[in-house]
Amino acid sequence: MGLRDYTLFDVIARNARLFRDRTALIQEGQRVTHGEYLARVERLAGGLASAGMVPGDRIAVLAQNSLEFLDLYGAAARLGAILVPINWRLSADEITYVISDAAPRIIVAGAEYQAGIAAAENAFPFAERYYALGQPAGPFAPFADLGAPGAPAPAAEVGADSGFLMIHTAAVGGRPRGALLSHGGLLAANAQLLHYWRLGPTDVNLGMLPLFHLTGAGLFLAVQQAGGATVVLPRFDPEAALRHIQQDRVTVFGEFPPMLGTLLEHAEKGGHDLSSLRAVAGLDAPDTIGRFEAAWPGATFWVGYGQSEVSGFVTLCAFRDRPGSAGWPTFLNAVSLVDDLDTHLPVGQTGEIVVRGPMVFTGYWNCAADNALTFRNGWHHTGDLGRFDETGCLWYAGRSPAKELIKPGGENVYPAEVEKVIVEHPALLEAVVIGVPDAQWGEAIKAVCVCRPGQQVTAAEVIEFVGGRIARFKKPKHVTFVAALPRTPAGAIDRQKVKDEHGRA
Amino acid sequence: MGLRDYTLFDVIARNARLFRDRTALIQEGQRVTHGEYLARVERLAGGLASAGMVPGDRIAVLAQNSLEFLDLYGAAARLGAILVPINWRLSADEITYVISDAAPRIIVAGAEYQAGIAAAENAFPFAERYYALGQPAGPFAPFADLGAPGAPAPAAEVGADSGFLMIHTAAVGGRPRGALLSHGGLLAANAQLLHYWRLGPTDVNLGMLPLFHLTGAGLFLAVQQAGGATVVLPRFDPEAALRHIQQDRVTVFGEFPPMLGTLLEHAEKGGHDLSSLRAVAGLDAPDTIGRFEAAWPGATFWVGYGQSEVSGFVTLCAFRDRPGSAGWPTFLNAVSLVDDLDTHLPVGQTGEIVVRGPMVFTGYWNCAADNALTFRNGWHHTGDLGRFDETGCLWYAGRSPAKELIKPGGENVYPAEVEKVIVEHPALLEAVVIGVPDAQWGEAIKAVCVCRPGQQVTAAEVIEFVGGRIARFKKPKHVTFVAALPRTPAGAIDRQKVKDEHGRA
Repeated sequence: MGLRDYTLFDVIARNARLFRDRTALIQEGQRVTHGEYLARVERLAGGLASAGMVPGDRIAVLAQNSLEFLDLYGAAARLGAILVPINWRLSADEITYVISDAAPRIIVAGAEYQAGIAAAENAFPFAERYYALGQPAGPFAPFADLGAPGAPAPAAEVGADSGFLMIHTAAVGGRPRGALLSHGGLLAANAQLLHYWRLGPTDVNLGMLPLFHLTGAGLFLAVQQAGGATVVLPRFDPEAALRHIQQDRVTVFGEFPPMLGTLLEHAEKGGHDLSSLRAVAGLDAPDTIGRFEAAWPGATFWVGYGQSEVSGFVTLCAFRDRPGSAGWPTFLNAVSLVDDLDTHLPVGQTGEIVVRGPMVFTGYWNCAADNALTFRNGWHHTGDLGRFDETGCLWYAGRSPAKELIKPGGENVYPAEVEKVIVEHPALLEAVVIGVPDAQWGEAIKAVCVCRPGQQVTAAEVIEFVGGRIARFKKPKHVTFVAALPRTPAGAIDRQKVKDEHGRA
Repeated sequence: MGLRDYTLFDVIARNARLFRDRTALIQEGQRVTHGEYLARVERLAGGLASAGMVPGDRIAVLAQNSLEFLDLYGAAARLGAILVPINWRLSADEITYVISDAAPRIIVAGAEYQAGIAAAENAFPFAERYYALGQPAGPFAPFADLGAPGAPAPAAEVGADSGFLMIHTAAVGGRPRGALLSHGGLLAANAQLLHYWRLGPTDVNLGMLPLFHLTGAGLFLAVQQAGGATVVLPRFDPEAALRHIQQDRVTVFGEFPPMLGTLLEHAEKGGHDLSSLRAVAGLDAPDTIGRFEAAWPGATFWVGYGQSEVSGFVTLCAFRDRPGSAGWPTFLNAVSLVDDLDTHLPVGQTGEIVVRGPMVFTGYWNCAADNALTFRNGWHHTGDLGRFDETGCLWYAGRSPAKELIKPGGENVYPAEVEKVIVEHPALLEAVVIGVPDAQWGEAIKAVCVCRPGQQVTAAEVIEFVGGRIARFKKPKHVTFVAALPRTPAGAIDRQKVKDEHGRA
């Protein structure tokens, strides 16, 4: 631990001193104080150290949210280990790829995911131990083994620049890359949220976004740094969410469509009290945000621009302060826009959003060449487009054409990975996948397909074909067939023209 | 500029985009917007670059607070230069020492300090240029020469770890050492104040503490990062302060005794309106703080523990939340207590305050051996004593015996430097200098002296003798004569016994 290092474990230790008897975590009937959380984390870190974990080792976790998952966050911070939370919506092949890429020494899985991992065990020669959250089977040992009383973990060399969280995102050629976030980057993100949302020890976060998403992890970490509490929901469940909001006086949560709309509908019917809410952050339709703020005027809906690679929000504002925008650059980051030659652009011009500052991630795991490109000229190139208005506010303008991305319900879907699967169908010759507006999910996936000569297939068949091969949230909601795709003079598919012609639901 | 670097100049550039037309600085009738401040800083940086300044070079400034002084703060940040603001209360010899230690390429001085510097010019072979704030004389050129339109400064390699501010403090053997603070350390200090004081673009700081003090510089930098304004007062003047508080709606300031008491007295007589005040930070007597908060209930008096070496406050609380304490550790620093063997101490035990985290300074200038000692075992050893109570709150318990320090009116005075001068008096044999409580200044200096056999001298003579040789704030307020000083069994002067016997005003 260096002289100028402060880590996410230091936060837990501070909380145990300053807020020892205050609630840190809530799950169903169970409450864990900050003092108890430190004790749980220390015990688990001791068990992981006995199991051979040393700084820099990875722990993969494939599980729904739980207290144990959050214990793993703390223990990884304590040990200088890297936590690799895996999206459980991915297909078996995708999960195998992520695990192989991260090469964790230890794999932790929820009961419902053990069989899938056990089936691919041969692909994981690096994995020394498997632990089960829930009933163990096959190669899995009980997770409680790790928390048995034993020797404490030795002091670990963990620095502000040490990697802490690996989030697989930013697929290239259908393969996601592991963005490695540091302690220091996440602490800077926390510092910003503490300020903008005025977070304190009385705040309560509703942790219903999955912990494999940065938004889920980031809100937990920020409220924790404020000394507040997080309610752990295994996954989104509107009735459970509303019950907790009311009984635990939840003040803050993150959401992706259609969560907020669903909550509002249920709350209207059930007469739930949401008056404790102060800050909600996410993506949503202006109508839904408007309904929410009208019904609960004590709450503010926050919007911003961020991605896993920048550890959180680098622009932020209350939706009402500039509806439709992504807000103003926050106070610990330089945010700029560049053209293809990396010339910084003036107000009003659209360019690629680039970021410099302590929140920029340490790089994609094992992708030195990609990192050199992404970080060229001293800025992280996000692949997103935007423009600044006269007040310095950022307006998001979609993905850079070379880096298209569709976001159904907040998930990242890269057209290339869907197109690659579609054309594996014997009846299909080629396809372009695009995002279209969607009232429920914010954005939906549309496939524009060309059949092979003499072949035919239905839209439902295409959707099912894709859904059976990659994560189901990546399957198209809409499929259109065309005789031929438009081409550029050079003969390439003219994706922009496809979008212009088919870019509506 | 590295990928993960964010600097104090980035703050100025962001302000110019987000708060362009809002007021950044106020001095007498003059207002400078954030947009204008960036332009002033860029012009001055261009001038300094033309004068040969490169990253890491020092600029010494001996001047009362002014807009130009704050321009120098910004220009140094822009260039990666190190600003060395000098305490104008120091004696000529002390000033010469500080300048020689920092070896600045450029020296900037207010009109009233030029003659002193010119007289010592031969001691400054490293100084290439002298600039005058006010009417220039001798080797000094007009400061305006630096701000003449010209080529902009080249892009500079400035990182979060780059040194920015050198503050001479922590004297050893009567010689202060230059504590070098980094951009990243000061930005972390800002982030904490932004959160705790909820600083925003509508805040107005009354800059009456001298800019050579970290408290003066730190409040300016924090309010600036929030997009707020600073009123520049050349020095403390109660009538001017009250006029600005009322007319500029000042919300925050820092103070050392007897400033607040003096302001309250003048305000009561003059009927000034102080209702705009929200946060005042400093040291003061409980009575004065109580009177202030009773008269202006919208304001909170903040206390904390900090020193130049940790870039600001590492513990903080509203005085009323725990009167007499130094508050709770802030959220970006680890604060602990150790014994002489660097064992960390439990709650309730008194030990040396040690700090780890991004706010720890880069070290004392040209003091590698001192730094190794000060930073041993991965913690900055502050030389101050404290204990934690059950709530994790810090209670200050004085200086470590080896590192005594007296703080009259917020200034640092080291007994050794005063004692060294006293015994130069031909009538005096030895002396011990201690701090005693003082209603006006918080603490006052008391000298306990032994005369040479057959010699005599009056208290007034001793005081005048010291005041003529070192900074006048270092001269004793009280002088007592004794036949002999108490000794330890080993024969050393028993300083603790002197304190026990004479430690009252």
